[in-house]
Amino acid sequence: MSRSQHGKSLIFNLFNNGTGHHEAAWRLPGSHPLANLDVEYYERIARLAESVMFDSVFLADHVSLDGPARRPSGRIDPLTLLTAVARATSRIGLIATASTSYNDPFNLARRFASLDLISGGRAAWNIVTTPGDASARNFGLDSQASHLERYQRADEFVAVAKKLWDSWEDDAVMADPAAGVWADESKIHAIEHRGRFFSVHGPLNLPRSPQGYPVLVQAGSSEHGKDFAARHAEAVFTAQHTLADGQAFYADLKRRVRLAGRDPDGVKILPGIVPVIGSTETEALELDAELDRLILAESGRDRLARQLGLDPAQLPMDEQLPDELPGEDRIEGDKSRYTLIVELGRREKLTVRQLVGRLGSGRGHRTFPGTPEQVADTIEQWAAEGAADGFNIMPAALPSGFELFVEHVVPILRSRGLIRTEYAGSTLREHYGLARPPSQYASRYSQAGRSISSL
Amino acid sequence: MSRSQHGKSLIFNLFNNGTGHHEAAWRLPGSHPLANLDVEYYERIARLAESVMFDSVFLADHVSLDGPARRPSGRIDPLTLLTAVARATSRIGLIATASTSYNDPFNLARRFASLDLISGGRAAWNIVTTPGDASARNFGLDSQASHLERYQRADEFVAVAKKLWDSWEDDAVMADPAAGVWADESKIHAIEHRGRFFSVHGPLNLPRSPQGYPVLVQAGSSEHGKDFAARHAEAVFTAQHTLADGQAFYADLKRRVRLAGRDPDGVKILPGIVPVIGSTETEALELDAELDRLILAESGRDRLARQLGLDPAQLPMDEQLPDELPGEDRIEGDKSRYTLIVELGRREKLTVRQLVGRLGSGRGHRTFPGTPEQVADTIEQWAAEGAADGFNIMPAALPSGFELFVEHVVPILRSRGLIRTEYAGSTLREHYGLARPPSQYASRYSQAGRSISSL
Repeated sequence: MSRSQHGKSLIFNLFNNGTGHHEAAWRLPGSHPLANLDVEYYERIARLAESVMFDSVFLADHVSLDGPARRPSGRIDPLTLLTAVARATSRIGLIATASTSYNDPFNLARRFASLDLISGGRAAWNIVTTPGDASARNFGLDSQASHLERYQRADEFVAVAKKLWDSWEDDAVMADPAAGVWADESKIHAIEHRGRFFSVHGPLNLPRSPQGYPVLVQAGSSEHGKDFAARHAEAVFTAQHTLADGQAFYADLKRRVRLAGRDPDGVKILPGIVPVIGSTETEALELDAELDRLILAESGRDRLARQLGLDPAQLPMDEQLPDELPGEDRIEGDKSRYTLIVELGRREKLTVRQLVGRLGSGRGHRTFPGTPEQVADTIEQWAAEGAADGFNIMPAALPSGFELFVEHVVPILRSRGLIRTEYAGSTLREHYGLARPPSQYASRYSQAGRSISSL
Repeated sequence: MSRSQHGKSLIFNLFNNGTGHHEAAWRLPGSHPLANLDVEYYERIARLAESVMFDSVFLADHVSLDGPARRPSGRIDPLTLLTAVARATSRIGLIATASTSYNDPFNLARRFASLDLISGGRAAWNIVTTPGDASARNFGLDSQASHLERYQRADEFVAVAKKLWDSWEDDAVMADPAAGVWADESKIHAIEHRGRFFSVHGPLNLPRSPQGYPVLVQAGSSEHGKDFAARHAEAVFTAQHTLADGQAFYADLKRRVRLAGRDPDGVKILPGIVPVIGSTETEALELDAELDRLILAESGRDRLARQLGLDPAQLPMDEQLPDELPGEDRIEGDKSRYTLIVELGRREKLTVRQLVGRLGSGRGHRTFPGTPEQVADTIEQWAAEGAADGFNIMPAALPSGFELFVEHVVPILRSRGLIRTEYAGSTLREHYGLARPPSQYASRYSQAGRSISSL
């Protein structure tokens, strides 16, 4: 098998969700059932990822509580948690999820600029629109906005955030005590945004951060999601199960990026993989089976029913999915998750019980039980055959699964030149090979916007 | 002079605003003009304060940009910055300012719970309503809500936040892998709040934090502000200039707390003091005068005019304030700042130039140039004579003014028993002598709110 198609190392992101992506992993002997609440744990895992030159660590988020009875629940605010991680590390990138539906652009743009400043240019924002009525009800609404409207709001939100991040030109700060001049106000711009969802005067109350703005990450695979990614994303998390699907997604998204007038190399596609590592294939399959045995099937079925827009009674445990399902266009929640689940169930003719097991092991992402060699092979194959610029590594059990990955898979990846042996740059943009964006106001503020000194 | 009236050490908070509370301090030789953007600087100063057993460090905030041309401007988000400081320290309390006018209760309650968790119980929230149209325009409004309405919103905001912080009882988390039970849902409560400003279903998506909730701090001295403090605050920053005014404020606020049905000892009153320390009184006065000479008078007058609701042309530099002024009831911005300024100008018959100088040195707080002995004396006197439970130390120049305070004032305070010599507890509540609040849902959820397991 050849080196990766680009002849350079791939991107590796660790998705740390606490006890691991298999929902029963917290029940394994030696797990840390309070990992989700332990800042030192997140610091330690990020340092481990940094020790093998991973590009980034990623934290997901929800703004409502789901099922605390049966598995670790509750999340430290990701931007807050990654600020602690920033100070415990020095090179690895830090990807925090935050919602465009339930934040203000000014506060959120400022918080990401703050993390980018504190981390020396290592911040990234996983942009989510946050499906679900439970979240909406925590923010003054009785039910969520439609899928389309959430994406329309996200589109304007990101445009406003970019204006705010650009509102100070890079050389606005003078800091000249003798002259008594701290900043050149002609290089700080009111943004004067007035749109459908937001009205924001600006400028931001922070100078431009090391990366200009955080790396923009996105994960939705619906039509709205892919078009949004084509316009804004610089990295995309995705969840295809087969190489053919991965190749099709990769080609389709790069095409959309090109149609949106952007450079396809400026958008990195990172499929999720849930490795379950054993020293032999049999051992890996046994660990996978042990995890599935620990799943609490009924609570998994309740969640599956919600995701499909059904009542749990419509899903007998030992039958396949009903022939009649609502259809993605009827779903106002997470459309791409819906479609992945239905396709998985139909393709592999899984019973509800089996489907719950598969979903419990990585929430619909591709579970890959195998030896370190097999895991490295599939990583190499997907990259070489046009399905990936890198990978979102989602160990079924944490920290054990990542420790095994570091100890046994990374040396193989290194020997094949698929993972870097040292950091070349200091910012996440440099790690990912993304350009630092110029301020949209630089050198043209007299046309494009008034500086605050003229207001 | 006697020991403090309580026979125990006082509370000491350091208000770190970057280069110091005199607006020209950044122009002194040896200053750090980019301090406001330097996370390591904030970590270092907090460690210095912790080394002499200060109770807490405090960061102010604004959500708009004011005058970047003439002095250091732009602020790292305080909760984010204090998360870094939390990991660089182990005992000192961390007070972050955040606005009730421009946040959602769910997100903000969660962020403070996150900081309290990460810091091991050292978080506090300085609750502000954020005056000014410039801030309003960053959040979709053309002008600020009225002073009264901002306080009404703050009142409901804090009530919602308390419900969210209480929504998990302290013993809700079981984390029992063998039984497959992570939390007892009968001890996690939907809050189902529906009010004038907010509609929040809950519960919070985090367990109860070490302090139950962060220490609640407040600083407004208007009538609305004092009534708000009486209902909610556990510590109050204030800005009286004379001992008599300090005593009157102290007595009035404790009375209001009693009338609100709370224990007056549960509200700590912390006057601000801007020490300007010299080895002799003459040296201190010379430093004070040097700082005033560095002030850029015109930019100070522009700000003064805004605070008084006037045009700068109505304030000739070498005349006293005009006889006719709008009156506090006409001010919708910061009423207590307005009144402090007018009273200072009238009482000391200051010209506008002199007033700008005095305000530049600590934004209306009490500047105290003197020897270490004199600074310790005034601290002891205010506490002994019923004007303070502790102090908000606001050095005119930072870090130099705080380094002098640590080196020369703290040993005197220690010899008089006015500052602790070791931390007795680990949380900020323990440092301040405040009780840990029980959850309002504990042991009575069947009456007061439904647990989520019954929804």
